[in-house]
Amino acid sequence: MSSSFGHAFRIHTFGESHGGGVGVIVDGVPPKVPLTVEDIQFELDRRRPGQSEIVTPRKEADKAEILSGLVDGVTQGTPIAVFVRNEDQRPGAYEEMAVKYRPSHADYTYDAKYGIRALSGGGRASARETIGRVAAAAIAKQVLQHLCPGIEVLAWVKSIHHLNASVDPHTVTSADVESNIVRTGDPAMVEQMIDLIKEVRGEGNSVGGVVECVIRNCPPGLGEPVFDKLEAELAKAMLSLPATKGFEIGSGFAGTLLTGREHNDPFRMVDGKVRTTSNRSGGIQGGISNGEDIIFRVAFKPTATIMMSQETVTNTGENTELAGRGRHDACVLPRAVPMVEAMALLVIVDHLLRQRGQVGGFPAPK
Amino acid sequence: MSSSFGHAFRIHTFGESHGGGVGVIVDGVPPKVPLTVEDIQFELDRRRPGQSEIVTPRKEADKAEILSGLVDGVTQGTPIAVFVRNEDQRPGAYEEMAVKYRPSHADYTYDAKYGIRALSGGGRASARETIGRVAAAAIAKQVLQHLCPGIEVLAWVKSIHHLNASVDPHTVTSADVESNIVRTGDPAMVEQMIDLIKEVRGEGNSVGGVVECVIRNCPPGLGEPVFDKLEAELAKAMLSLPATKGFEIGSGFAGTLLTGREHNDPFRMVDGKVRTTSNRSGGIQGGISNGEDIIFRVAFKPTATIMMSQETVTNTGENTELAGRGRHDACVLPRAVPMVEAMALLVIVDHLLRQRGQVGGFPAPK
Amino acid sequence: MSSSFGHAFRIHTFGESHGGGVGVIVDGVPPKVPLTVEDIQFELDRRRPGQSEIVTPRKEADKAEILSGLVDGVTQGTPIAVFVRNEDQRPGAYEEMAVKYRPSHADYTYDAKYGIRALSGGGRASARETIGRVAAAAIAKQVLQHLCPGIEVLAWVKSIHHLNASVDPHTVTSADVESNIVRTGDPAMVEQMIDLIKEVRGEGNSVGGVVECVIRNCPPGLGEPVFDKLEAELAKAMLSLPATKGFEIGSGFAGTLLTGREHNDPFRMVDGKVRTTSNRSGGIQGGISNGEDIIFRVAFKPTATIMMSQETVTNTGENTELAGRGRHDACVLPRAVPMVEAMALLVIVDHLLRQRGQVGGFPAPK
Amino acid sequence: MSSSFGHAFRIHTFGESHGGGVGVIVDGVPPKVPLTVEDIQFELDRRRPGQSEIVTPRKEADKAEILSGLVDGVTQGTPIAVFVRNEDQRPGAYEEMAVKYRPSHADYTYDAKYGIRALSGGGRASARETIGRVAAAAIAKQVLQHLCPGIEVLAWVKSIHHLNASVDPHTVTSADVESNIVRTGDPAMVEQMIDLIKEVRGEGNSVGGVVECVIRNCPPGLGEPVFDKLEAELAKAMLSLPATKGFEIGSGFAGTLLTGREHNDPFRMVDGKVRTTSNRSGGIQGGISNGEDIIFRVAFKPTATIMMSQETVTNTGENTELAGRGRHDACVLPRAVPMVEAMALLVIVDHLLRQRGQVGGFPAPK
Repeated sequence: MSSSFGHAFRIHTFGESHGGGVGVIVDGVPPKVPLTVEDIQFELDRRRPGQSEIVTPRKEADKAEILSGLVDGVTQGTPIAVFVRNEDQRPGAYEEMAVKYRPSHADYTYDAKYGIRALSGGGRASARETIGRVAAAAIAKQVLQHLCPGIEVLAWVKSIHHLNASVDPHTVTSADVESNIVRTGDPAMVEQMIDLIKEVRGEGNSVGGVVECVIRNCPPGLGEPVFDKLEAELAKAMLSLPATKGFEIGSGFAGTLLTGREHNDPFRMVDGKVRTTSNRSGGIQGGISNGEDIIFRVAFKPTATIMMSQETVTNTGENTELAGRGRHDACVLPRAVPMVEAMALLVIVDHLLRQRGQVGGFPAPK
Repeated sequence: MSSSFGHAFRIHTFGESHGGGVGVIVDGVPPKVPLTVEDIQFELDRRRPGQSEIVTPRKEADKAEILSGLVDGVTQGTPIAVFVRNEDQRPGAYEEMAVKYRPSHADYTYDAKYGIRALSGGGRASARETIGRVAAAAIAKQVLQHLCPGIEVLAWVKSIHHLNASVDPHTVTSADVESNIVRTGDPAMVEQMIDLIKEVRGEGNSVGGVVECVIRNCPPGLGEPVFDKLEAELAKAMLSLPATKGFEIGSGFAGTLLTGREHNDPFRMVDGKVRTTSNRSGGIQGGISNGEDIIFRVAFKPTATIMMSQETVTNTGENTELAGRGRHDACVLPRAVPMVEAMALLVIVDHLLRQRGQVGGFPAPK
Repeated sequence: MSSSFGHAFRIHTFGESHGGGVGVIVDGVPPKVPLTVEDIQFELDRRRPGQSEIVTPRKEADKAEILSGLVDGVTQGTPIAVFVRNEDQRPGAYEEMAVKYRPSHADYTYDAKYGIRALSGGGRASARETIGRVAAAAIAKQVLQHLCPGIEVLAWVKSIHHLNASVDPHTVTSADVESNIVRTGDPAMVEQMIDLIKEVRGEGNSVGGVVECVIRNCPPGLGEPVFDKLEAELAKAMLSLPATKGFEIGSGFAGTLLTGREHNDPFRMVDGKVRTTSNRSGGIQGGISNGEDIIFRVAFKPTATIMMSQETVTNTGENTELAGRGRHDACVLPRAVPMVEAMALLVIVDHLLRQRGQVGGFPAPK
Repeated sequence: MSSSFGHAFRIHTFGESHGGGVGVIVDGVPPKVPLTVEDIQFELDRRRPGQSEIVTPRKEADKAEILSGLVDGVTQGTPIAVFVRNEDQRPGAYEEMAVKYRPSHADYTYDAKYGIRALSGGGRASARETIGRVAAAAIAKQVLQHLCPGIEVLAWVKSIHHLNASVDPHTVTSADVESNIVRTGDPAMVEQMIDLIKEVRGEGNSVGGVVECVIRNCPPGLGEPVFDKLEAELAKAMLSLPATKGFEIGSGFAGTLLTGREHNDPFRMVDGKVRTTSNRSGGIQGGISNGEDIIFRVAFKPTATIMMSQETVTNTGENTELAGRGRHDACVLPRAVPMVEAMALLVIVDHLLRQRGQVGGFPAPK
């Protein structure tokens, strides 16, 4: 459904940049999982604008409030609602947008869909909507730690424009990624990436890039064999994030340049476990996790908001120009990292609970 | 849910390579849509093994039977069940697989998921499962023609291994694609592609490639702004197909090498309509169709079944080798084309009905 | 899903008596429907404790806040979140309940379900949870007026304990029902019913009764033929309200005392419309509305909270007694009336949108 | 969704009296559950027309075929499709119905819903549709025995017209019920009930009645606290059966004549278990099972098909009469018993799997 995600672990988000605020209801949370508002705030702070000199300077505190489902620091099994009140609304900034469609934003398509001009800062298309997802995923993270300790979801900036980071998905750590404001795992690229972002921002322009993500220690057996293949669910999750244009898992598009002999991952027994000696499958085979690291990449286009004059039309059908002004996020990649992790966490926890429901455990009891 | 797809136009598939057969229930079909079993058979024949000299030689007639929901050639608004009985079961061919996991197939992960060795030719992971999808999409195609005539969904082989076809997504026709057994839209590449497939098949090896797809004349306004973005639904649909490793829309991964100024699609009025002068968005903005051609690409890995000896393990945990033998599809790309079209059709019709339900029409009534 | 209701018009509720508050997200709302917070507050006030001398004296203002989905008094097509902050928490009152299970409440079953003692005033089983439903239904009411003006949903108290009201479902008005604090449609019974409630309250005892509801001017064609029959959806909706024990539609249980000849509703043309000359079907045939008044009844048991000492056990398995004290609602019937209307509204609007999605209108376009 | 039921254990039915046949896909079935086609056939035979002298004399073999999801007598975790081919179609019998609406059938409402005259013997409204439900429930029964042995679902005829059976829900056995063709649990009423059915059949008339059902040894903790209360799910399940007009659980409508003091079920420890000394709750409190017997009743109206001339209208809007002729089931109650059991089984297994998914077991692990 339109603002819901997941089956067994289900989230329902609401809210726009304008109006009272944004938030989420998380339903299907197992009871007796330790949770604090700080667990949620920690992840929101990683997503927050204004957190460093290379992201949008908007100042939003994004303070989370847990409205339900938690007593004495423990989940109750009932829906957990998290709310973040809007503060920085500045409706004046959007006056021009009330009549002119911003190129490559959702302004025109919203109008076409609902027959109504969404004045509210991009409406639900605003990146602000992802607050609810990140808050929900912070809860998912606690559930994961409780049900299946050891699983780790970690993302990083793999590239910004033409600058490619060299990162080993099997060994990079959260500390590596969080050690720099770009959130790349390659120390050698940090300075260049920061410089590039500052440069394009100075020009009023923007850049995109690729986020890479690994899910480690995922038990084999997660994912469904047909439509809800684990990679299909991840693909949907990632393409539902604003500004994404592509998803690939394991060998991805480059894998089409290999032959079957080169591409297949041989099985070998290692320490009594079934393992593969290569991982072009990206940790998923036939839609189901095989216990290897799940590795995927997500393409983010350059931010549509630029500080340059652009050709566009009005909502009454006249050609016009849109002047560039206001604030903008010249590169969303550093803030996209926690969003990618969030969506991956939601998918994994959902499938853990689905697997437990149908089969009784992960992996299946013999 | 595990074997269901879609919300308003919903399909439920069933069946394996072994057992009685495969099929689908299509629920939510509008009433009074003309439909014949030939509409379905036509698409199944495009998906069928043995249809040409470059696909798997297995002979399966794949005869569709409509079991319900149709009276006098017209849909009744009730569930339409389509069934295809299995013919070519050959259980003997799978004896070795009963103990050895085929590399990069779903054999091991099935075992891990269900705690049971699926002897049935890959179970639901078999490409045979896609029969239900293609049958359902043939129904979707009739609904589309009835509700929103003019929409066209067309896919073709964009690349096989290193061979890239040059195809203009805006002008290529169904006749162009169907004129050759590779189903590429570039006549200049047909011979080379056929030769390559025959060559790798001769070696017992396999190759993958990329399928590209266009959806033309899609009305603006389809897709939901948050999780069920049209590109997210397409991404899931495509990654749910067997052997897929990547999805990209519009500018895709290459779009990360552009700046915002280069990437944004300016709006202009053309013949009284809001149009964009470029289409790096790929026909979708903020998750909602904008009326331009929707263009996306799907990566298919080289077929996992190869006729070469491979290292693997048994289901009792011993290292072993799997000899290559039997039949194999050295390149699934020609047969993947109708599958990609099928999944795209299912997504579009689902969102047409969702839009009509919530808003009353496409685009929204003013 | 556990806290979600509806398919096309979907609501997700959250919140307990304790914690931040209660509320709802309403998803799938058509755009451009006029809506004010007063529309919602009006219905909440009908549901509110302390509204008259015969309901629980708890003082809760239950002030609704619309957090999203509304701009300039018009729905945006995006999720509408409504929140009511908790005020009157009084945790002290529940100390005894922390160890003793209240008879015929959900205390023990919650413990059995979640493995955790829900201290929070009955948790989600609290009647306070229905605030979200009533708020959502106030939105549904506006949608109904917009899409299908003329439909009216009206409920009243049919009986309290042995006191039966004589009400004509076809002619009783909202003004009739709201003219008295019992919310019965029979002026002759008002005084007796009030006296009875006061009497049992004086004894610390409680009484139940039956609410009857009519849906007038419902277009024919709503409801699905199999599992989602309109009466099945209404039955679920009503039995999901706290304290309900039964549902019957049209002739109901008494209809089992008629023969088919007596029970069947003959069709006759009246003013060019297909009508039935009797209405034992209760406005629904084969799960689908037939255009006649939809009439059903819901049984509410006597309130479980009584001010008398009762035998019970502790959560550590010891027999004990629970003293009666505190506040109680000796009869929920007057407050149940808006809850019954709310659930009926949610069902009807959901099916209107489902029908429009699949078929294109109500009744079906010819 | 229209032809789907359940969340974790989901069924999708299809088929009409006319057309190829009827059937069901059951999705979400746990793997490794022993199952045979005879398990399904056994229940279908209890539902079958022509099984005794007091049910409709139509001869339908209703032979079940399992099309998927089963290998070597064990479920695979994949969708199980069951198909029953139609045999006795007799389209001639329905000619008159092609223009005249049968009173209190779904003929007119189908037309209003779909804008199309369903010639197919009542379409999905036909009792024949319940074959899919009964087949699915036979699978549910095996799952239940596997996951939670000891649970028993047993229904019987409680009344036919004015004839009331005296049955103790706690002690009546399946053998008691199956020992007579009426399927009542009271030997003293068998002859009178058979005589009554024969008498009304002789007159071309029909009678209805009440089916009562008990679910024994259900673990505490099943059901969701808000919309998916166990009694709400049962109510929907039962009201989705053809010809039902009412549902009540525990004390039901009669419970409104008790005071709270009389109605509450005191808790006592018995053999180390929390038990209630009375069971007016009917085994469910706050939507969640409490471990006591779950007891409910379902009202079935007299069959709408009678062999008497009736007033009606044509589908072109003219008053007319419908002559009575052909075959009819003068009382559906004996055949309704397995249908009620089937729907109860589907609800219970669904909630067992949902509980295992979210909480990990039934009752919740401490």
